[in-house]
Amino acid sequence: MAIRFEVLVRDRRSGARVGRLVTPHGTFETPMFMPVGTQATVKTLTPEELREIGAKIVLANTYHLWLRPGEDVVAEAGGLHRFMAWDGAILTDSGGFQVFSLAERRRVEEEGVYFRSHLDGSVKFMSPEVSIAVQNALGADIIMAFDECPPLEADRAYVEASAARTLRWAERSLRAHRYPERQALFGIVQGGFYPDLRVAHARALVALDFPGYAVGGLSIGEPKEVMYRILEETVPHLPEGKPRYLMGVGSPDAIFAAVERGIDLFDSVLPTRIARNGTAMTSRGRLVVRNAEYRRSWEPLDANCDCKVCRTFTRGYLRHLFHAEEMLGPRLLTYHNLYFLLSLMEGIRASIREGRFQEFKEAFLSAYYADQPHRGF
Amino acid sequence: MAIRFEVLVRDRRSGARVGRLVTPHGTFETPMFMPVGTQATVKTLTPEELREIGAKIVLANTYHLWLRPGEDVVAEAGGLHRFMAWDGAILTDSGGFQVFSLAERRRVEEEGVYFRSHLDGSVKFMSPEVSIAVQNALGADIIMAFDECPPLEADRAYVEASAARTLRWAERSLRAHRYPERQALFGIVQGGFYPDLRVAHARALVALDFPGYAVGGLSIGEPKEVMYRILEETVPHLPEGKPRYLMGVGSPDAIFAAVERGIDLFDSVLPTRIARNGTAMTSRGRLVVRNAEYRRSWEPLDANCDCKVCRTFTRGYLRHLFHAEEMLGPRLLTYHNLYFLLSLMEGIRASIREGRFQEFKEAFLSAYYADQPHRGF
Repeated sequence: MAIRFEVLVRDRRSGARVGRLVTPHGTFETPMFMPVGTQATVKTLTPEELREIGAKIVLANTYHLWLRPGEDVVAEAGGLHRFMAWDGAILTDSGGFQVFSLAERRRVEEEGVYFRSHLDGSVKFMSPEVSIAVQNALGADIIMAFDECPPLEADRAYVEASAARTLRWAERSLRAHRYPERQALFGIVQGGFYPDLRVAHARALVALDFPGYAVGGLSIGEPKEVMYRILEETVPHLPEGKPRYLMGVGSPDAIFAAVERGIDLFDSVLPTRIARNGTAMTSRGRLVVRNAEYRRSWEPLDANCDCKVCRTFTRGYLRHLFHAEEMLGPRLLTYHNLYFLLSLMEGIRASIREGRFQEFKEAFLSAYYADQPHRGF
Repeated sequence: MAIRFEVLVRDRRSGARVGRLVTPHGTFETPMFMPVGTQATVKTLTPEELREIGAKIVLANTYHLWLRPGEDVVAEAGGLHRFMAWDGAILTDSGGFQVFSLAERRRVEEEGVYFRSHLDGSVKFMSPEVSIAVQNALGADIIMAFDECPPLEADRAYVEASAARTLRWAERSLRAHRYPERQALFGIVQGGFYPDLRVAHARALVALDFPGYAVGGLSIGEPKEVMYRILEETVPHLPEGKPRYLMGVGSPDAIFAAVERGIDLFDSVLPTRIARNGTAMTSRGRLVVRNAEYRRSWEPLDANCDCKVCRTFTRGYLRHLFHAEEMLGPRLLTYHNLYFLLSLMEGIRASIREGRFQEFKEAFLSAYYADQPHRGF
């Protein structure tokens, strides 16, 4: 087995739990957030900085690396860890999400998906076999079955057919996987916003005995309450002793909600994307450092944060960097936001361990959303 | 006096020398290269990294900081050192070069220069008094007199009149300077490519007794031999016991040539600008890491370099970062190029101290330009 997972502590009042995940590239505790390194780099940061802020596992995108530089190039470099000089754990997605969101002129068939590359318009074909072959070449510690994430507006008939095909693709992904002893292949639960489809899909996937399970197709524009309800319906059908990964979620409120529904792993471009746009995550909520009010603010981004950025630079200087379009601005905010989110995960783990998860959650969220009563993101 | 300078070792076969410059923000030995931090940031790098690669003094641009964020904002932050969180030494230029190269619709008068801001087109006025007031507010350790850098194509009459005006501006800069005890004001020798004008200008400036002197108006497109000849004519007229700064020079061949003609300080955007464009400076010359030949090159940029980038990343990965337009690429090459140039300066100082400057120069340049017999940059 490529990974081992163990639940260490269970919260008595919710589904929250602390787990330990052992991978070929390090052991860490869950719940854990995975910074996104789409193109084999967590944008603007070095691996040394990722270690410094407590990242243990990063996500890289199969679709992007397949198209550029090519999985053969990465394999020749010695695999993705060597290529990007990151000795922690890596998870690669299947490419399915990008094929269905980024690529142009798609044609979905049972065999796989024909589409045009977003880079050069050339015709490409992605299937479970192609996805797994690429992920085998990249060599991440956790790899994902090839799936379809149906669009928000898909009707029941579409979602049902899509989930059935994703299930067949999951079986083909399992069969195609060449290195189960060093790469853990996770299945992805789909089924849209139909609880019965979700439950049926989860049960069928569990019968295939994957070493871990993701919940996909959420956080695509639906109201958060809908996502929480789907998690409540789905997670109880996933094995207690295996890791559960909610794809694409990185806002504090949704992380708390998912943790208390039994989720162990998260990824999202949210902290890194808003950082590049000049928005910091702080203990008092989002701070748009570009704003005029920070021109003469000589405070750190977050008085409660002890990251290197908050110990060194002021809001006024960071605002200047963004207005002057200096790369150091996005870099420093990316560092801070990931530190913030990884510290939040650490706080969550400690609170579960110490039996005060609900209290921690309420204190954190009431400060975070103090100025945003509707919890806008 | 804001600074103290002492010549520690003189090369017996050339004008090269090792000096010690004591500033309010640290002491360092010369010859030294100053990384350029135009907008109060050496592009992509943190002050911590600048310290790590051995930078002791950085240059910031008065013109840019005056327009954005405004010298009043920087002063309110506690000055430029506090604003950018750099506790090493800082030199600010006078803004003259930018007024004459960057600004639009200039009108030069005896009093100063009227021009339009390159940011918003608004009418601005820069004079010796304005420049020094801005530099006093920024608070750098070394500040520069306001001068005109005549264009390459200027005729003798223009250069002569310009140099005379620059001399009057130098006197006004001295008179306007409010903090000579904490900021050392350097004069700038102009005079174009006319040795007699250079000599006269140098002598007149020296009579004003500045604590240091720059040679300006060079490296603006003239053949390097012309620049070297001007240095040979000019430097002997500058005081032996004061620092000499050649503005805008950062290529290894020109640095060696200027060091052996008695120059102590350098600045240039070359290493940082070519880094952002994907070009590394290595012991074997320039390496354009974007090139196809490095797609599958798993060597460091420079096998002879022990910087963090060369110890960690391969050419193939760096090439990928540039092709994928990832900010980490410019960041890593900037780090490497400045490390390379600061190490070169360290090598130059050691070779002068050990009486082997000529040998060091010949060995370095023959490797650096091995593949570029015409020493193209």
